[in-house]
Amino acid sequence: MTSVTSLFAPVDDDLRLLTDNLKELVGARHPILGAAAEHLFGAGGKRLRPAIVLLASRATMVEQDLTSYHRRLAEITEMIHTASLVHDDVVDESETRRNVETVNSLFGNRIAVLAGDFLFAQSSWYLANLDNLAVVKLLSEVIRDFAEGEIRQGLSQFDVDLSITDYLEKSYYKTASLMANSVKAAGVLSGVSPEVCDHLYGYGRNLGLAFQIVDDILDFTATSEVLGKPAGSDLKSGNLTAPVLYALEEKPELKDLIENEFTGEGELESAIALIKETKGIDRTRELASYHSQLAVEYLDKAVKDSPSSQALRDLADYILRRLY
Amino acid sequence: MTSVTSLFAPVDDDLRLLTDNLKELVGARHPILGAAAEHLFGAGGKRLRPAIVLLASRATMVEQDLTSYHRRLAEITEMIHTASLVHDDVVDESETRRNVETVNSLFGNRIAVLAGDFLFAQSSWYLANLDNLAVVKLLSEVIRDFAEGEIRQGLSQFDVDLSITDYLEKSYYKTASLMANSVKAAGVLSGVSPEVCDHLYGYGRNLGLAFQIVDDILDFTATSEVLGKPAGSDLKSGNLTAPVLYALEEKPELKDLIENEFTGEGELESAIALIKETKGIDRTRELASYHSQLAVEYLDKAVKDSPSSQALRDLADYILRRLY
Repeated sequence: MTSVTSLFAPVDDDLRLLTDNLKELVGARHPILGAAAEHLFGAGGKRLRPAIVLLASRATMVEQDLTSYHRRLAEITEMIHTASLVHDDVVDESETRRNVETVNSLFGNRIAVLAGDFLFAQSSWYLANLDNLAVVKLLSEVIRDFAEGEIRQGLSQFDVDLSITDYLEKSYYKTASLMANSVKAAGVLSGVSPEVCDHLYGYGRNLGLAFQIVDDILDFTATSEVLGKPAGSDLKSGNLTAPVLYALEEKPELKDLIENEFTGEGELESAIALIKETKGIDRTRELASYHSQLAVEYLDKAVKDSPSSQALRDLADYILRRLY
Repeated sequence: MTSVTSLFAPVDDDLRLLTDNLKELVGARHPILGAAAEHLFGAGGKRLRPAIVLLASRATMVEQDLTSYHRRLAEITEMIHTASLVHDDVVDESETRRNVETVNSLFGNRIAVLAGDFLFAQSSWYLANLDNLAVVKLLSEVIRDFAEGEIRQGLSQFDVDLSITDYLEKSYYKTASLMANSVKAAGVLSGVSPEVCDHLYGYGRNLGLAFQIVDDILDFTATSEVLGKPAGSDLKSGNLTAPVLYALEEKPELKDLIENEFTGEGELESAIALIKETKGIDRTRELASYHSQLAVEYLDKAVKDSPSSQALRDLADYILRRLY
């Protein structure tokens, strides 16, 4: 199977530059954050979000080179994403993420709150200095959606009455909003028409939803080793995702297990086994596939053929292949 | 002695509206934050920062009523300030502030990080929607300065080589930047000239510095009851302020006590007693007075006589009177 990073070939050089810049921007000025920056922007990350922004930038600037504004936008996107992860891990008291210790686990809550605030603050400042009010609005929407998503997730823990619509909304806030708005912002910076910007938004939104849906399937089907966190950990924490919501329609007995918050011995394992007996995971795969196809349809309306637009197309496909 | 709130008479109605709006904006949409919002924007606060913004708005709009943008700016200012307090209290593990339990102490770190992020996110969004790029830049500067200030304070703990210049810089980041940039932003929204905007900035900057310097004196001279936190708590945590830095010039023996981080029995009390024997507190008073006077000079260059400009003038004076 192709690795996701091989898809990023058209922006390989851009991504190398971005990584160096991010470490410099965050770490060099403040030794106290140096270790955290090395940890956050070091070798591990896939740079999915800035790669998408850079590919969308190249796909909309076919005949010209990227501007420094496009590159800055990609950096801002990764900074906002990283800041939200750092604070999420404090809020959820997570000790590892993708098999790597979290900032709060390595350096304590104090440094983790500070590092996240610093990243948010830096990104706000760089954003304001892109000198483009439309882009500022799009990215401020993302920051607000992250906070909204965290709060909604907190409010809907163990709520068996959650609908698929609620689930998609929650997934938009926590994952798809960033991709939708940042890809659209890349279009704004390239000066494409408002219509094309809306198609780019449609691509990012549906790609982000497909990505989150696949993640939520993997929580049930992948091993803890592949996930980099214990399998079934979303369910355990009461974050009910599509496979669970579909399974609830077939197995009413699942409701009691969930509402009991898996406090009894072996209840989490029973719930996971029950879910796997249903069509929940298959139906969720179809949902992911639907959004992935929709993403490609929007993309085809937005950009012409080029290595970068092909990479964006392949990415929508790659996301589904993570399942097999 | 006049209370500070009586100085706010010209904007009393504006402040009442602002308080209701803030509770609504933060609390009503999310029950999980409702208690925190009630706590944060409830009866206790002095609303110093939005009052200054509203007074500067009225002082620059003498013949006209405030716009909804001016009001929104005042709300944003209070939201950013409150967000930074909530995260500061997590970072510093503070249990009370102004005799009131902190959000982290009442609701835990999880809600405190979320509440702070939500406030920052809301303020970024409202800021972007003021539709004024210059104002976005000014306030993004403030958010960055807060993060910078927190980090610098962390880096300079117990550093006896800190200069008065370093101290003023730190005070600018943590207190004066918000006042300077938000008062200037009020001028931008009123459409006054760039020169007047710079004078407004000068007023806010020096008022903020005087305010912080006075706060740092009170840490030594006021009772714990008045402070709402234990007296000498800045010194204890290694935050070296002007009285300490001046005292170090007279009493070299203070250096060892500080570098020993007051780990020995009674060392904090000895250090406080030593500081009080020096001219440190008197010299710090002169420093506060200098910045308060400078604030008035800038103000007089920026605005004409009006009840609101008189209130801003009185405020610079009031800040010093807190010392007597």
